[in-house]
Amino acid sequence: MTFDQWMRASLDRVETALEHYLPGTDVAPAKLHEAMRYAVLGGGKRVRPLLCHAAGELTGAGSQQLEAASAALEMIHVYSLVHDDMPAMDDDALRRGKPTVHVQYDEATALLVGDALQSQAFVALTADNGLSVAQQAALTRELALASGSVGMAGGQAIDLESVGRKLSRPELETMHRKKTGALLRASVRMGALCGEAPDAAAMSALDAYAAAVGLAFQVVDDILDVTADSATLGKTAGKDAKDDKPTYVSIIGLDASRELAAQLGRDAHAALAPFGPRAGRLGELADLVVNRVH
Amino acid sequence: MTFDQWMRASLDRVETALEHYLPGTDVAPAKLHEAMRYAVLGGGKRVRPLLCHAAGELTGAGSQQLEAASAALEMIHVYSLVHDDMPAMDDDALRRGKPTVHVQYDEATALLVGDALQSQAFVALTADNGLSVAQQAALTRELALASGSVGMAGGQAIDLESVGRKLSRPELETMHRKKTGALLRASVRMGALCGEAPDAAAMSALDAYAAAVGLAFQVVDDILDVTADSATLGKTAGKDAKDDKPTYVSIIGLDASRELAAQLGRDAHAALAPFGPRAGRLGELADLVVNRVH
Repeated sequence: MTFDQWMRASLDRVETALEHYLPGTDVAPAKLHEAMRYAVLGGGKRVRPLLCHAAGELTGAGSQQLEAASAALEMIHVYSLVHDDMPAMDDDALRRGKPTVHVQYDEATALLVGDALQSQAFVALTADNGLSVAQQAALTRELALASGSVGMAGGQAIDLESVGRKLSRPELETMHRKKTGALLRASVRMGALCGEAPDAAAMSALDAYAAAVGLAFQVVDDILDVTADSATLGKTAGKDAKDDKPTYVSIIGLDASRELAAQLGRDAHAALAPFGPRAGRLGELADLVVNRVH
Repeated sequence: MTFDQWMRASLDRVETALEHYLPGTDVAPAKLHEAMRYAVLGGGKRVRPLLCHAAGELTGAGSQQLEAASAALEMIHVYSLVHDDMPAMDDDALRRGKPTVHVQYDEATALLVGDALQSQAFVALTADNGLSVAQQAALTRELALASGSVGMAGGQAIDLESVGRKLSRPELETMHRKKTGALLRASVRMGALCGEAPDAAAMSALDAYAAAVGLAFQVVDDILDVTADSATLGKTAGKDAKDDKPTYVSIIGLDASRELAAQLGRDAHAALAPFGPRAGRLGELADLVVNRVH
């Protein structure tokens, strides 16, 4: 199977899984479920589900298990987008090429959509999904830590405090390791944990891979914010500069940012060396993250 | 041990557990952790933790296990208060006798405090807390379903849609069964699940108890909103009428609401009959809910 074929097949499975794990609009309250589905379905790069699926290939994880973990990861990611886009945070009107949830519905609905998506992620992890109870507990812990105050939400808090302030490069890196890095790392770890439990050395190699990919993802995000347009991105371009947010481009410049992204891609591949060809999909995903144009 | 002594001992354990399961202000990001602790510690009636502890007495649950479950329940409850108090929802400035989180800090912080408290609840459930992995998975599922779109968040969505609209009594009951009932029911079930797994008949008796107590809790809330003052309640009194929210008092009147609360108290006791004296604490808690003055 080529990488493109694998990616298309994985994305299909992820979409089906999200459809399955989101309550239908025939379930009350219908409007809330409609808004949750509006936020989640039919858009997004699904980077976290893809990382989860690729890592699962290393440990022989079954597709049912990976679908539950992927759906949970994407629900957490989307909840964070919905809340981040709200007026109290980034105040953005466009996401994945569509009006953001608080624009399409209203602020109260956006708040509840995010809240309920977070809960629903843990419902998916503990459903009848082929995972053993030990795996369900382990994945719940991974996801909760990665999304909470020492992970994603904590990174968001640091981000808010840093607007208009000059961050050092290490400070910027710390922020991103929490804000986006933690959930990307959890995507890789949770995918691996869906199969035969990896040993400590394998987990630590996967962590090194995820750290490089996570940071590369952010550096490329910062590059695209200044080089791409809103139509290509599906979100408002040039927003970081407008909001006076510290970025890799603002701190080290565009050329050095491009070189950094390429170096992080090489770091990701180096971390995968111990796994040999079994880690092929993870390597291809690292290339995708570094070379993406939206 | 008298009920008062039991309650004081349980409340002490709950406070210690919350202190333990909330990240300290020495952990980054300090401001977010400070705000989470501001929201959770040193206030609140802790009704859900008390129900959890009382139900655990029925099934021989250990205190370490009950502390983790109680802390998780209270974190979910507090996150919902923090978000409900925000301007996009109820826009309230006073909670538990203190300024609400968005008033004390800002809206973005309140949003993140709620988000991170929800994650932290699942961190507590899957910590090294004496629960087996099967219990951790079961409790995670109970809590996620009770707090999500078919539970608490769903009830909140129905509540928002019903402002200014005349609800029938069955519609009002449906809303409350989700908005507050689901988490109160989860409190009882999770407490029981912390010990020897109860059989289906016992679980169903506990559900009947929780349904009665949950509804009684709401009816009494509606009564207190018109009969008590803000200082006694620790939150803004008279707010339901001001916001034109449907309540038991507005639909069936004050006297009928009082009679309904008393009847629900009797229903709660009837549901406990199969357990005999072992369910004493649950019975006393039902009385506390019905007779409370704040």
